[in-house]
Amino acid sequence: ILQIWLDSELICLEITRWVICGLIGFLTGLIACMIDIAVEKLAGYKYLAVKQNIEKYTELGGLSISLILWAVLNSAFVMLGSLAVAFLEPIAAGSGIPQIKCFLNGVKIPRVVRLKTLVIKVFGVICSVAGGLAVGKEGPMIHSGAVVAAGVSQGRSTSLKKDFKIFEYFRRDTEKRDFVSAGAAAGVSAAFGAPVGGVLFSLEEGASFWNQLLTWRIFFASMVSTFTLNFFLSIYHGKPGQLSSPGLINFGRFDSDVSSVFIVFRGVLGALFNIINYWLTIFRIRYIHRPCLQVMEAMLVAAVTATVSFAMIYFSNDCQPLGQDNTEEYPLQLFCADGEYNSMATAFFNTPERSVRSLFHNPPGTYNPVTLGVFTLAYFALAVWTYGLTVSAGVFIPSLLIGAAWGRLFGILLSFIIWADPGKYALIGAAAQLGGIVRMTLSLTVILVEATGNVTYGFPIMLVLMTAKIVGDYFIEGRSRIPGLQSVPFLHWDAPPTSHWLTAREVMSSPVTCFNRVEKVGRIVDVLSNTSTNHNGFPVVSDTTENDEPGKICGLILRSQLIVLLKHKVFVERASSRLSQRRLQLKDFRDAYPRFPPIQSIHVSQDERECMMDLTEFMNPTPYTVPQETSLPRVFKLFRALGLRHLVVVDNENRVVGLVTRKDLARYHVGKDGLEELHLAQT
Amino acid sequence: ILQIWLDSELICLEITRWVICGLIGFLTGLIACMIDIAVEKLAGYKYLAVKQNIEKYTELGGLSISLILWAVLNSAFVMLGSLAVAFLEPIAAGSGIPQIKCFLNGVKIPRVVRLKTLVIKVFGVICSVAGGLAVGKEGPMIHSGAVVAAGVSQGRSTSLKKDFKIFEYFRRDTEKRDFVSAGAAAGVSAAFGAPVGGVLFSLEEGASFWNQLLTWRIFFASMVSTFTLNFFLSIYHGKPGQLSSPGLINFGRFDSDVSSVFIVFRGVLGALFNIINYWLTIFRIRYIHRPCLQVMEAMLVAAVTATVSFAMIYFSNDCQPLGQDNTEEYPLQLFCADGEYNSMATAFFNTPERSVRSLFHNPPGTYNPVTLGVFTLAYFALAVWTYGLTVSAGVFIPSLLIGAAWGRLFGILLSFIIWADPGKYALIGAAAQLGGIVRMTLSLTVILVEATGNVTYGFPIMLVLMTAKIVGDYFIEGRSRIPGLQSVPFLHWDAPPTSHWLTAREVMSSPVTCFNRVEKVGRIVDVLSNTSTNHNGFPVVSDTTENDEPGKICGLILRSQLIVLLKHKVFVERASSRLSQRRLQLKDFRDAYPRFPPIQSIHVSQDERECMMDLTEFMNPTPYTVPQETSLPRVFKLFRALGLRHLVVVDNENRVVGLVTRKDLARYHVGKDGLEELHLAQT
Repeated sequence: ILQIWLDSELICLEITRWVICGLIGFLTGLIACMIDIAVEKLAGYKYLAVKQNIEKYTELGGLSISLILWAVLNSAFVMLGSLAVAFLEPIAAGSGIPQIKCFLNGVKIPRVVRLKTLVIKVFGVICSVAGGLAVGKEGPMIHSGAVVAAGVSQGRSTSLKKDFKIFEYFRRDTEKRDFVSAGAAAGVSAAFGAPVGGVLFSLEEGASFWNQLLTWRIFFASMVSTFTLNFFLSIYHGKPGQLSSPGLINFGRFDSDVSSVFIVFRGVLGALFNIINYWLTIFRIRYIHRPCLQVMEAMLVAAVTATVSFAMIYFSNDCQPLGQDNTEEYPLQLFCADGEYNSMATAFFNTPERSVRSLFHNPPGTYNPVTLGVFTLAYFALAVWTYGLTVSAGVFIPSLLIGAAWGRLFGILLSFIIWADPGKYALIGAAAQLGGIVRMTLSLTVILVEATGNVTYGFPIMLVLMTAKIVGDYFIEGRSRIPGLQSVPFLHWDAPPTSHWLTAREVMSSPVTCFNRVEKVGRIVDVLSNTSTNHNGFPVVSDTTENDEPGKICGLILRSQLIVLLKHKVFVERASSRLSQRRLQLKDFRDAYPRFPPIQSIHVSQDERECMMDLTEFMNPTPYTVPQETSLPRVFKLFRALGLRHLVVVDNENRVVGLVTRKDLARYHVGKDGLEELHLAQT
Repeated sequence: ILQIWLDSELICLEITRWVICGLIGFLTGLIACMIDIAVEKLAGYKYLAVKQNIEKYTELGGLSISLILWAVLNSAFVMLGSLAVAFLEPIAAGSGIPQIKCFLNGVKIPRVVRLKTLVIKVFGVICSVAGGLAVGKEGPMIHSGAVVAAGVSQGRSTSLKKDFKIFEYFRRDTEKRDFVSAGAAAGVSAAFGAPVGGVLFSLEEGASFWNQLLTWRIFFASMVSTFTLNFFLSIYHGKPGQLSSPGLINFGRFDSDVSSVFIVFRGVLGALFNIINYWLTIFRIRYIHRPCLQVMEAMLVAAVTATVSFAMIYFSNDCQPLGQDNTEEYPLQLFCADGEYNSMATAFFNTPERSVRSLFHNPPGTYNPVTLGVFTLAYFALAVWTYGLTVSAGVFIPSLLIGAAWGRLFGILLSFIIWADPGKYALIGAAAQLGGIVRMTLSLTVILVEATGNVTYGFPIMLVLMTAKIVGDYFIEGRSRIPGLQSVPFLHWDAPPTSHWLTAREVMSSPVTCFNRVEKVGRIVDVLSNTSTNHNGFPVVSDTTENDEPGKICGLILRSQLIVLLKHKVFVERASSRLSQRRLQLKDFRDAYPRFPPIQSIHVSQDERECMMDLTEFMNPTPYTVPQETSLPRVFKLFRALGLRHLVVVDNENRVVGLVTRKDLARYHVGKDGLEELHLAQT
């Protein structure tokens, strides 16, 4: 009977997990849909207003008024977004991908997955994209998906101060992380219409151990997400049932003729300099950022973007005949002859997504090489300046756009010599640029292949991405790959290659603070209050003898567990005196998750300090242990494969001699001069 | 200096791995290409001959001669293939996917990855497909890819008795398994034009720990494989540069209108009965197979297939007008009026790949529902009978074909009520049928999505596959999922759900045969020769005291290592007497891999039996250990995450009390009545 009951409970839990994943996918899809529609609407109004204004003043000859109108509109949008981000929730700045990467890696960053962050993020993205900045709305979707996942799976919100009393079983680190993986995947899926790419992104960044059911659920969330987006966008576009927009950015369908693509590889190397330059500039920006003028800077960038765009449109004289199919949404005649439109205006007077698509698909001859060259340079400069501003924005689309522009330029130049389809080169260029900047190679390949909808491009895209990554790594290795988060104990996939000589003995922290099975409350409080040794896990040993020799390991207990125990005053003395008192249950631990009270908030009287606490019942009785001679790569593998946070090092009598934490591992790093120890902030 | 030297050596190794993966992909693609062309040619000649014969005798009225010709041709092809398989290499029978799954899971099956197996397999597949059996050539590609990988990565072939003296570093289990994963992925990729699906297949079945570089390499192999196939097939078809056939089976491009697809879900349940029926029949066949009449049976099936096909064509009177685009390659007029062709003949008179594609894409009205119904039933019966014959053949294509046929039938029937595109239903039906039979859900979804080239179908395909899997599991769970390999210690992804109560103590084998650090040769030989305890790993303990109390663990040594040590007579006494003797090197172990000599072939004299062997230098000094109280799920996780084969169980004094092997874990299984212990064969 117990068996069957347990069985059905497990099945219930599993079904609940699936329902939650479905919900995550659905909500993420809805959010993506909302962002897309809002941006389309706002940008549409803006471009319409500016266009009408320009058309009006082209003849009257007061185009500076149009420029001011454009700049003011841009700045106003950006100001709103930037204000919200800077003053309400600074963590919502940027794309949020580094933060999510850290979260999936097992590093906690405060306030990343709160509802408030999500609201600010969505608002910020809409504002900054509508404000015409050189940014995309795809990156933030990943963060949004993750927040949705964290919120839904926990069944409560700290921002709203509301507890729905559901899904209480999932209130612990491992379950939450699994759902956040699903959310991030759903975000990728909605952003690029790439469900498989989403799954691979989550696996690449987070899941340490390939768990089939989990992967399935992640895949389910991704599928639901892209399907929801597709469904609602189709309805919005008035074509229900056609389901032609699986992602926020759609590359359009590429046909299979790639025979000409291969010649482009020589061009990749040239692009890599761009990438490196780009990275260096990012670092420069990082070091000159000011705290409170951020909003001003964002507005300035918005205004400058408008000005540059305007100037380039104004001074360009690249007129193209208006096609009969009228693919351009806002063809701008300006100084062109009747029946022609300004080609530069098309590139700037558009959401970046549209520009990317036209670079991929417009027939050869649509773009003048000079126009394209100037555009690439200008947009590159703008994108570099924009990246790092205090606005919610992604770097995918600008990278794609820059890459597509120079790729197409290269293709056009090449086509003077041999025939070549510049659209294909645009795709390859975009891949190279993106690969150099984002450097999540495997999932990126899949995302791009899914976005192009043609497996034939997979091979060239993969080669380009690999080249970009290798060259990128060569120049950047030695610095943290996540700017701004250098002090975070981020664990990479493998141990540094030359660390075979290091053993657990050299890596571990020692001596370790251990507790006895039955420990005095006073000592526990003292240890937890000691800020210099703020460990999160403590080995429990069989009773230490008087001569301070370490005892045999018999368990591991977490700081959070100790705090809950102290809060409920689960002391040996009390247990015997008050038998009627209800026993501490798993629920008490879950309710406290994830914000356990600090030790200072728990009052322990002098009398109580003399009580004893029996940890036997609450500790993990079989923690993972390794002998001292274990090599670093093996320790590393245990950490990554099992998702450990603490590993107890024992001697051959099973006595505790040390403790390895994530931080101990993250310290070792391959630098220019072989293995280096990093100094991580003590947080 | 050492640092730099080590660094560059590691980089060299990594580059070598990439080169090998590229080679694997290239060769796998070539093999797929060869099989495809051979089958096309042979089947083309056969159909042409039969068609001319039929046309000749339709008027003369001696159609039985045509029937005999067809049956004889079929039988002849099948006889060749079956003879080769039955007498030269029985392991080449079937698709080989179960064997590869086991190999990736870590279970060794003899002769699976030999060159001879590959040759027979390729020959067998060509014969059985050309012989008109209801089989496909896709499944065997996975096996072929794996064999290629094993051969290339080891740099030698046992079948050819040739050692190329390259890639010697990779001659060990872990490296070989990694390459075989890549090979299997390349096989999937070539078969379905689905590189991502291939990677997921390998991960789902094999890789226990998500290793980023490994995944990258697998992906690379897949990409190269599909690209090679695409490239050469394009040249063969006379359209170089078009690259339109990334896989052996191409579904053709589906457009995005899926609004009508959703109604089909109700139909899935009906199909599931098919699937279950199918499985039961498979099991029946398994139990009535005879050893030497296999070839006869295969020929009989081939003849019957021809007869049934012929009868159905003969008695059907479903004539369809000949389209002006002439998509049918062998339109057969038979008794139809001029300008019309026999529609039943199209279904049978074709390679199954073509039939699947026409079921998906032919416009509504191409097929008569009665024709389709009869065809489905007949083909189903034939496929059930064929599966399990001693021929190399896959079950993918027949499943797809049956599924597509009933799906289309359902779609046609439905279209009497509401409008519906039967091609879409054919796709969904194919997915359901395949899902019920093959049951590798995640990778299968991706494979099908990649094969259709449209992400929009992902969601319905996934839902159908999940339903099919759940229903399938419900009926089949409790039996092994790999027919014919019931006794293999196959580890599933998770521990059985209700095994939390079991601890390592209850699962482990005990007592364990341990060796001392310095052990008497005689004892080692005795232990290794003892056939009743053929363990592969032995804990090494610090010297046991006389009272037989188990010693403290200090290492783990493998049977294969001991055998190499014995063969080279690495005895303590000799080391001191012959200082000039060269030391045993890693190379000696590698050269012996993977066919270590049996203990019986090593002669140890009576004198030598008294010598001592020092194992300290050769054992693994830090084996993974767990305390006795560790729960079964935790032990399971360690095994899967770290790819363990032996786990030493120790008490809290670090003394060996037991050893958990894969077999101990695979014994526990959830059956109808809760947890069951399986009795595994002692092999």
